[in-house]
Amino acid sequence: MAGAGKKVPAGVAKRAKRIKVLIMDVDGTITDGSVTLLSAPDGKSATEIKIFDAHDGQGMALAHTAGLRTGLITGRESAALRRRASELHVDFVYEKQAHKVAAYEEILRKTSVPESAVAYLGDDLPDLPVMRRVGLAVAVRDAAREVKLAAHHVTRAPGGKGAARELVELILKSQGIWEDMIDKARA
Amino acid sequence: MAGAGKKVPAGVAKRAKRIKVLIMDVDGTITDGSVTLLSAPDGKSATEIKIFDAHDGQGMALAHTAGLRTGLITGRESAALRRRASELHVDFVYEKQAHKVAAYEEILRKTSVPESAVAYLGDDLPDLPVMRRVGLAVAVRDAAREVKLAAHHVTRAPGGKGAARELVELILKSQGIWEDMIDKARA
Amino acid sequence: MAGAGKKVPAGVAKRAKRIKVLIMDVDGTITDGSVTLLSAPDGKSATEIKIFDAHDGQGMALAHTAGLRTGLITGRESAALRRRASELHVDFVYEKQAHKVAAYEEILRKTSVPESAVAYLGDDLPDLPVMRRVGLAVAVRDAAREVKLAAHHVTRAPGGKGAARELVELILKSQGIWEDMIDKARA
Amino acid sequence: MAGAGKKVPAGVAKRAKRIKVLIMDVDGTITDGSVTLLSAPDGKSATEIKIFDAHDGQGMALAHTAGLRTGLITGRESAALRRRASELHVDFVYEKQAHKVAAYEEILRKTSVPESAVAYLGDDLPDLPVMRRVGLAVAVRDAAREVKLAAHHVTRAPGGKGAARELVELILKSQGIWEDMIDKARA
Repeated sequence: MAGAGKKVPAGVAKRAKRIKVLIMDVDGTITDGSVTLLSAPDGKSATEIKIFDAHDGQGMALAHTAGLRTGLITGRESAALRRRASELHVDFVYEKQAHKVAAYEEILRKTSVPESAVAYLGDDLPDLPVMRRVGLAVAVRDAAREVKLAAHHVTRAPGGKGAARELVELILKSQGIWEDMIDKARA
Repeated sequence: MAGAGKKVPAGVAKRAKRIKVLIMDVDGTITDGSVTLLSAPDGKSATEIKIFDAHDGQGMALAHTAGLRTGLITGRESAALRRRASELHVDFVYEKQAHKVAAYEEILRKTSVPESAVAYLGDDLPDLPVMRRVGLAVAVRDAAREVKLAAHHVTRAPGGKGAARELVELILKSQGIWEDMIDKARA
Repeated sequence: MAGAGKKVPAGVAKRAKRIKVLIMDVDGTITDGSVTLLSAPDGKSATEIKIFDAHDGQGMALAHTAGLRTGLITGRESAALRRRASELHVDFVYEKQAHKVAAYEEILRKTSVPESAVAYLGDDLPDLPVMRRVGLAVAVRDAAREVKLAAHHVTRAPGGKGAARELVELILKSQGIWEDMIDKARA
Repeated sequence: MAGAGKKVPAGVAKRAKRIKVLIMDVDGTITDGSVTLLSAPDGKSATEIKIFDAHDGQGMALAHTAGLRTGLITGRESAALRRRASELHVDFVYEKQAHKVAAYEEILRKTSVPESAVAYLGDDLPDLPVMRRVGLAVAVRDAAREVKLAAHHVTRAPGGKGAARELVELILKSQGIWEDMIDKARA
C-alpha cells in the first residue's frame, strides 16, 4: 500500500479536515480501470465483471464507521458494483450518469453539507465538472493529465490499487481519528 | 496514463493530422493481451472474457464524438467485444478475420477515404499487412519487435492500458481539436 | 518468485522452527487483494471470483505434505475459496468472520498446540488481533503499514503473488525439511 | 514482449536447433500463474477461469505451422484449457497429471523422437522430473529457484506473459525458419 503514513501538504490536510462526505468515481478509481466483460453462452450478450480492491474496501468501510457519508457516481451500471457498494455501506450510488453534476447536487441536497465538506476522487475527464466544485478534489496516480491538473491532491497509489484507502486515511488522519479506527476494522 | 501531453515527432503529427478513420486490432491492442476463458459448468465449453480499459474507452468514444470513423479487426469472436464496441460507438467491427486485409479494404470502400487518412494500431504479426498500407501505422509499446519496426510510431502505453487513448489524443491534438473534446466527455 | 533461497534473520528462523500450524488471511494474502465480482445475467446479484496463485498453492500443498496443519480465516464467503482450500488440503476454513480471534482460538483448541507453534500471514487491520498473539506473525510485502509494524517478518513477495509460498519455504527450510519436499511436489 | 531478437547462448541455440517437439506446463507457464475460480450462483461449486496470452498463442500457433509437435501437461483440468489448446492446434493435452513423466513418455512414444529433440517449458517443482530429461529444458523468468537451476535456459519474459512466444522464436530462429513464419501468421 502506497503512501500510508506519509505527510500530506498542509493545504490538503486543512481541506481534508472539513470533509463530511466522500464521493468517488468507479472505473479507474475504485477499480483498476479495466472494463471486463464475460460473453454469455448464447454468444449474444455479455455481463460485467468488476475488480475492486480489498484494501480500498477496508478504507471505505472505515470511512463509514468514522461517520463520513460515502457516495459513488458512475456512467456504467452493474450488479457487481451494487453488491460491492452494499458490502461497504456506501450511502449513495448513482449509476448510468453520463454527466455527474446532477447526482453530485442531489447528494449535496440529501446531506445538507456545504461543498467545502465534500471530497471527490476521480481519474478521467467526466470527473472534472464535480472536481472543480468540491472542497477536496483528488486524482488517482494514473488519472488523465487534465484531471491531475484540476486536483488539489494526487494519490501515490493508482486507481483500484489503494487510492481510495489512501484518501480515507488522509481524511481520517487529518481529522485525528485514524488511530481510533484501527481497532474497529472488521474483516 | 502514459504519454498524454508529450510532444510527438513532427512527421508523426503530420500523418496524424490527415486521419479520418481509426482502425485497431483487439487482443493485445485494446486489451492487455490476455486471452481469458471461463470453463462452463458442463466442463465441455468455455466462454470468453475480454478485459478492456476505461481510459481507452473514453478515448475511442471521444474519437467518435470528434467525427472520426472507428473500426476493429480481430481474428477472434466474442459477445464481449461486440458489447464493448457498441458502448463505444465503433463504426466497423470485423471478427474471425484470420487475415486482416479484406476487412481493411472493405472499410476503405465504405468510408471512401484514401489510405493516407487511415490510422491503424496493432501489436502482433497479423497486423503487419495492414500497417504497411495505412497513412499512420502505430504499434503499442509491448508489440512484437517486427510490428514496432514496421510502425511510424510506438505508443508509450502498452496495449490495453492506455495505448488507444494515447493514439486518439495524438490524432485529435494534431488536428487541434483535443481541447474542444475535453468538455464533451461523457461518463 | 521473490525471496526463495534468501537468508532470513536468525530470530525469525528460530520462531519458524517451532511452527506446527500455519494460518492465513485470504483477500490480499493468498489473493492479490482484488475483490472481483461478476454481475449475474438477471442484473440483480453478483458472484465472486477469487484469483489465487499456483506457486502459493504448491507451497500450501507442500506444507500439508510436510505435516503442518493449515487454516484460513476470512471475512468474506465464496465457493471459490472453498474449492481452492479443498484442492490444497487446508485443514481449517473459517468464513464470514468479521473478527478473527474466535476462529483462531478454535483452531488452537482443535490442534492443541501452544500459540508459539502458530504462524499467521496477513495484510490488513483485521489481522492484527491474531498477529499479536502467534509465535510467528508475518505480513505480506504490500500489507498495511500497521500490519507490517506488528509483524515479526515481512515477505519479499506481495500478497497473492508468492507470499504464502515464501512463508512455507521459510518454515520448512528452518525446520530442515524443504529439500525433502521438493521431490514430493505434485502438479 | 521481452527478449525477441536478442542473441541466445550458442549452447542453447545448438540444443534448440534439434527440437521437434515442444511441451509446456500450463499454470504459471502459459498462464500468469493465477488460479482463478468463479463461484457458481448455487454457492456450492466453482468453475475455472484461465488467463492465457495472445502473443504466446501466436507463438504456439506458429510452432504448429512450422511443423513442430506441441504438447501440454498439467495437474489441473478445465474446459478453458481444452478450448485454448484446440484454438492453437496443440497436438497433445494431458490433464490431471499429478506426476508428469508418464504423459511425457507417452508423447515420446507417439512422436518417436529422441529426448534430445524435445523442449520443455516449466515454472515449478512438478516440472523438474521432465526437465531433467529433455534436450532443451527452459524455465520462465518467474519460475521457482530450483527450476531455474535445472534449466538450460531461462526466458526473459515471465510465465503467461510472453515466455512461450520467446521460446518458440528462439527455436525457430535457431532453425533458421522464423523469418519464413512471419508472413504466415494468422490472427
